[in-house]
Amino acid sequence: MTSHAAPALDPSADIVDLTAAIVDIESVSGNERALADAVEQTLRAHAPHLEVLRDGDTVIARTARGLDRRVLLAGHLDTVPVADNLPSSRRTHEGREELVGRGTCDMKGGVAVLLKLAVEADAAPMDLTWIFYDHEEVAAADNSLTRLAAERPELLEADFAILGEPTSAGVEGGCKGTMKLEVTARGIAAHSARDWVGDNAIHHLAPVLERLSAYEARRAVIDGLEYRECFNAVAISGGIAGNVIPDRASATLNYRFAPDTTEAQAEAHVREVLAGLDLEIEVTDSAPGALPGLDTPAAREFLAALGDEVTVAAKQGWTDVARFSALGTPAVNFGPGDPLLAHTDDEHVPLADLRTALEGLRRFLTA
Amino acid sequence: MTSHAAPALDPSADIVDLTAAIVDIESVSGNERALADAVEQTLRAHAPHLEVLRDGDTVIARTARGLDRRVLLAGHLDTVPVADNLPSSRRTHEGREELVGRGTCDMKGGVAVLLKLAVEADAAPMDLTWIFYDHEEVAAADNSLTRLAAERPELLEADFAILGEPTSAGVEGGCKGTMKLEVTARGIAAHSARDWVGDNAIHHLAPVLERLSAYEARRAVIDGLEYRECFNAVAISGGIAGNVIPDRASATLNYRFAPDTTEAQAEAHVREVLAGLDLEIEVTDSAPGALPGLDTPAAREFLAALGDEVTVAAKQGWTDVARFSALGTPAVNFGPGDPLLAHTDDEHVPLADLRTALEGLRRFLTA
Repeated sequence: MTSHAAPALDPSADIVDLTAAIVDIESVSGNERALADAVEQTLRAHAPHLEVLRDGDTVIARTARGLDRRVLLAGHLDTVPVADNLPSSRRTHEGREELVGRGTCDMKGGVAVLLKLAVEADAAPMDLTWIFYDHEEVAAADNSLTRLAAERPELLEADFAILGEPTSAGVEGGCKGTMKLEVTARGIAAHSARDWVGDNAIHHLAPVLERLSAYEARRAVIDGLEYRECFNAVAISGGIAGNVIPDRASATLNYRFAPDTTEAQAEAHVREVLAGLDLEIEVTDSAPGALPGLDTPAAREFLAALGDEVTVAAKQGWTDVARFSALGTPAVNFGPGDPLLAHTDDEHVPLADLRTALEGLRRFLTA
Repeated sequence: MTSHAAPALDPSADIVDLTAAIVDIESVSGNERALADAVEQTLRAHAPHLEVLRDGDTVIARTARGLDRRVLLAGHLDTVPVADNLPSSRRTHEGREELVGRGTCDMKGGVAVLLKLAVEADAAPMDLTWIFYDHEEVAAADNSLTRLAAERPELLEADFAILGEPTSAGVEGGCKGTMKLEVTARGIAAHSARDWVGDNAIHHLAPVLERLSAYEARRAVIDGLEYRECFNAVAISGGIAGNVIPDRASATLNYRFAPDTTEAQAEAHVREVLAGLDLEIEVTDSAPGALPGLDTPAAREFLAALGDEVTVAAKQGWTDVARFSALGTPAVNFGPGDPLLAHTDDEHVPLADLRTALEGLRRFLTA
């Protein structure tokens, strides 16, 4: 029997120091145990007002004060692989103080804010559920929220959910849906010196690329937020040998659709865009979007607590907010860090973002 | 020391039996030794009028009678890999007798005809050079004719050359040239949910495929033979991940051009077809075609010997005739077997083709 002592985390530390301590516990997907242990122990030691549950490497902590509203706050503990960018370091870049390293942006800054407030907010005007979960940066089937939603859906019940994904400390409401499709063109193989006895499948993809190039994507405005749709070929392949006219060529298309569109409507739209072309079209992956629900009472209170300066925008990329939306819970993304830096080797978070996110969320929970 | 006794070949046997015996000595590229040994021993034992040379696994046999004209006849000994189609077998298919198996068509039927006549034609009206060579079905750099042309070009000198590649016992003059090009489009990578900050490189290939689809290939008539040009994408690739707008996509193009066109002209034409598109274009491989030279005296005598019934057409695929053409020697393809069956699992040769090719070539050499 081996015993791993989890590094101790001090939730009363400055938010920058707490973020650095969490970042420095490496937790690439599949290796979240040490960080989950540290989070669990911190909550058990410092937050007696919370009921703490452990499910695999996911830590759930809840108040049960019988209040008439429940808000869920969630953040994932895992990161994409380290790129020689741990332990974390601080720097000043173009006059801005930053914490640099894998996970600083996606999303241990958010995890630090949530952990600090989970300990602190023992008298919030609503019941709270805190979820620190594993396996977000990998296949959806391995994501612990998938397991919790299937096996213990009561733990995810809430009137409103806040996901601490990076948004530069602004509010990004809902998210677009995403659909992947494989389109395949068939032809007749032949020697490339006698193409007239064949039929080039690669050439049959010309009108597909043509229509994608010319595609004018819809911009849907929902609750005042603009969701810009996208429709792209993200992969293309074909070819047998250098002297053969190929009898098969295919492209992988990715359609990102506004959250007012169902998956069935999205597929119908794709088929309409490609109508009349001699192609096989197969949907290989699909996930619905999430409506922002900014007109719900809890969302309005959240926006009011953040004040007028906060930016409110649509979330363009798919995030786990869609899982809450599927359970009937409106959800927003709100966390420190620029989402465009997620997964990059130069991943970092501005220190100001950490403080802005902490203070905004604190106002909401202590209003 | 090991000794491999080459199976004995009987050049006086019926052409079908001789072909079957040669086919049954497996000689996939790189494994030609046993067959080269058998050919060498057959010539040394039965053709005292020939000077026989051995160079690697290539056998060269020559008359040196001081005649004013020399004709070169060549065939390769190797085959593409066996596909469970050896030893050879005979069958009757739709009323036609056939010899079935790897190499029957490409080109051991031709090798059998050449070997039989090399022994027989001891009093031809011209000097003769017979070349049985290795490594034709692999990279050009490994082809023994490449080595001979560089190191012993005098052995390839002739006024006219006949290559025994399959032509259904018709004459296929010259061959088209071939050029491979890599065209690459560049873009800007981005998340596929935010394509407006990126630039999809795959979409930039749309006009390339469009122009290839719409391309109207030239048909060049030379010495009465029609060479149909071809311009195709033979491969296409692009894509980084399912959620990324790719910043690079490329296609491999193959241009097959008539033998009245130089490689420089071919490249200029390709660049003209793709003019105005934002692409990198690189020629990765190129070989000139071969003019048929059917108006040369030796070619006219050859056609006269074959008689009026013989079909005369352009060779569309690139063959080693281009090597002779590059040395200044007009060359034609003439051999038993349908070239469309070369390399197929059902490779076979009609017995009638073997006899027609043997008799036609015999008339030429004994005229």
